Amino acid sequence: MQCSLALAWFLLCGLSGQARENVDYKTFSLGNFVLENNTTLPDAKLTYATRGTLNAQKDNAILVPSHYSANHHGYDYLTGPGLALDPEKYFIIATNMFANGLSSSPSNTPAPWHGSNFPAISIRDNVKAIHELLTKEFGISRLKAVVGFSMGGQQAYQWAVSYPDAAECMVAICTNARQYPFGVVRLEGAKAALTADAAWDNGNYQRPPVKGLRALGLHWAAWAYSQEFWRREAHLTVQQRTFAETLKQWEEAFLDSDANDLLSQATTWQKHDIGKTPGLDGTLQTALRSIKARVLLMPSDSDFYFPPADMERESYFIPRVTLTPIHTVWGHPAGGGANPTDTAFINQTIRRFLNERP
Amino acid sequence: MQCSLALAWFLLCGLSGQARENVDYKTFSLGNFVLENNTTLPDAKLTYATRGTLNAQKDNAILVPSHYSANHHGYDYLTGPGLALDPEKYFIIATNMFANGLSSSPSNTPAPWHGSNFPAISIRDNVKAIHELLTKEFGISRLKAVVGFSMGGQQAYQWAVSYPDAAECMVAICTNARQYPFGVVRLEGAKAALTADAAWDNGNYQRPPVKGLRALGLHWAAWAYSQEFWRREAHLTVQQRTFAETLKQWEEAFLDSDANDLLSQATTWQKHDIGKTPGLDGTLQTALRSIKARVLLMPSDSDFYFPPADMERESYFIPRVTLTPIHTVWGHPAGGGANPTDTAFINQTIRRFLNERP
Repeated sequence: MQCSLALAWFLLCGLSGQARENVDYKTFSLGNFVLENNTTLPDAKLTYATRGTLNAQKDNAILVPSHYSANHHGYDYLTGPGLALDPEKYFIIATNMFANGLSSSPSNTPAPWHGSNFPAISIRDNVKAIHELLTKEFGISRLKAVVGFSMGGQQAYQWAVSYPDAAECMVAICTNARQYPFGVVRLEGAKAALTADAAWDNGNYQRPPVKGLRALGLHWAAWAYSQEFWRREAHLTVQQRTFAETLKQWEEAFLDSDANDLLSQATTWQKHDIGKTPGLDGTLQTALRSIKARVLLMPSDSDFYFPPADMERESYFIPRVTLTPIHTVWGHPAGGGANPTDTAFINQTIRRFLNERP
Repeated sequence: MQCSLALAWFLLCGLSGQARENVDYKTFSLGNFVLENNTTLPDAKLTYATRGTLNAQKDNAILVPSHYSANHHGYDYLTGPGLALDPEKYFIIATNMFANGLSSSPSNTPAPWHGSNFPAISIRDNVKAIHELLTKEFGISRLKAVVGFSMGGQQAYQWAVSYPDAAECMVAICTNARQYPFGVVRLEGAKAALTADAAWDNGNYQRPPVKGLRALGLHWAAWAYSQEFWRREAHLTVQQRTFAETLKQWEEAFLDSDANDLLSQATTWQKHDIGKTPGLDGTLQTALRSIKARVLLMPSDSDFYFPPADMERESYFIPRVTLTPIHTVWGHPAGGGANPTDTAFINQTIRRFLNERP
């Protein structure tokens, strides 16, 4: 979750399931989509947006898969003239993750898979759906790059393992190849904060469980930034918010999100593990070694839930890898465009990486 | 909160407010106790336990003030023959913090100050009450040492500032001189997880808000230890618990605690600031410079909520200070006796420190 992106998401999309005017995304029908757990999701939808133009060789496409509680605008901080993902040069495909409220989600799926009945989704399910979109809709067999932040980075990692020949480059920002136990514990805390609200009613709420959504927001507040962020009152700089305003903004960050959507995404996050990719031997090391893409890893050195030590360890096993940490006090959101200084560094680093000769 | 201590606390004391057999602590009556916020708490009680014997000169007393959700057994890991606080040598006074369920608390105070009506308590209120106990009950004017972990360490810090001539030594473990903004945010998350449960009912519950107490426990789970603790599966070592068992143990850690007691202690924690001691100029630096005791600071280098950088900064301003970090992956509980290796190091370090010639 990155606050300014979340705000953008609310402003652009409004409440999940409500009628939207000026929809700025497209819908790809997956039909009866068989999930990794063998459940078939009928009439499944993958929504996405594009910028730029696919060239004749179809080799200039860059995929950016959405991250937690975000949408297809989650990479606007990297996309634009002069930025890392320049639409003059690349064809950028921004996909919406299942359960984000725009692609098939608890909040928009009819019975019997509505609400808390919505089947568990894996990161691999998301990647498989995107593969169908790219191959069937666009005829793209190989991406210039897949670039992801946070849960988007988990999809990028999975893409590079599930389809090792389908990307020249992979960029993973503030993410991991596997959700390590610490992160599972943290997300249990997040889910418990939301579901402690009796109004959640095991997912059968008629009105939003507001207290739980507020508790979830406050859960995230302390996890988002580093201790130094708060000490230096960094919220007074870019966001120009007082301490109290910042706390309130976090408390209210999820009020327009659907509780079941949020819980579903959290479970997807918890279960992430490229090591479990079918056809491999079940170990993380083997999955990392199987990656053929050139890889750029960008951890934030103050990220609590994707601590840089994770990416450093992962880098040991990736054949062609560059590890470039973001030096910042902005914690996880640093990787999502929260702080202009970090954003400039990320753009510069990715742009150079993409321009390197293989 | 440190889990094994919390468990000891449950086993020893049971539910707050219930009848207890074999009570192993004493009660000191504070009478009408005027709090820092000018509220008078009628018939206030401070409970405590002692070990060892006060010598004739009354100069061998060591105070150990309780920490969050713990009681007068919270320092058993430092107390005993051959340990840092040896009852053969020292007279050890273990006090129970207001709102811990044994001293005056929301759960045991009659109307009109019962439950959520219980007045806000400051760390300074606790220290003032302890000062009354020491001077009036024991005639102790100067301690050999005050030793505190976590919120107990906050009381130790405050003691050294409020009564600069009343301790030869001060030992602060995994704590801080002021609750920095980050910790305030984190505790807002903790409180929100508990109060999201409608059964909490603004503190007017008739039965415990079990879902909220569980959410609080899961909130703490991820904050307690470091990411490395979970990665190395350190829970399999000392605690000999699986991942799932560890998570469950945390989820249930507060089920026998009183919700209003927990919330009251959290607020006391959030408001802690030795810089605001009356008679000083309001700055943390001045308060730290005013400390006359020899000081030992022991941060845990994997403590999320009392990050070692805080103590390092504080140490710059303390006239006579030794900074000795605990190198561990056990996070905050390392300082509370959770891991035998760390506990041995802390005991050894404190014992040597107390034996140094002033």
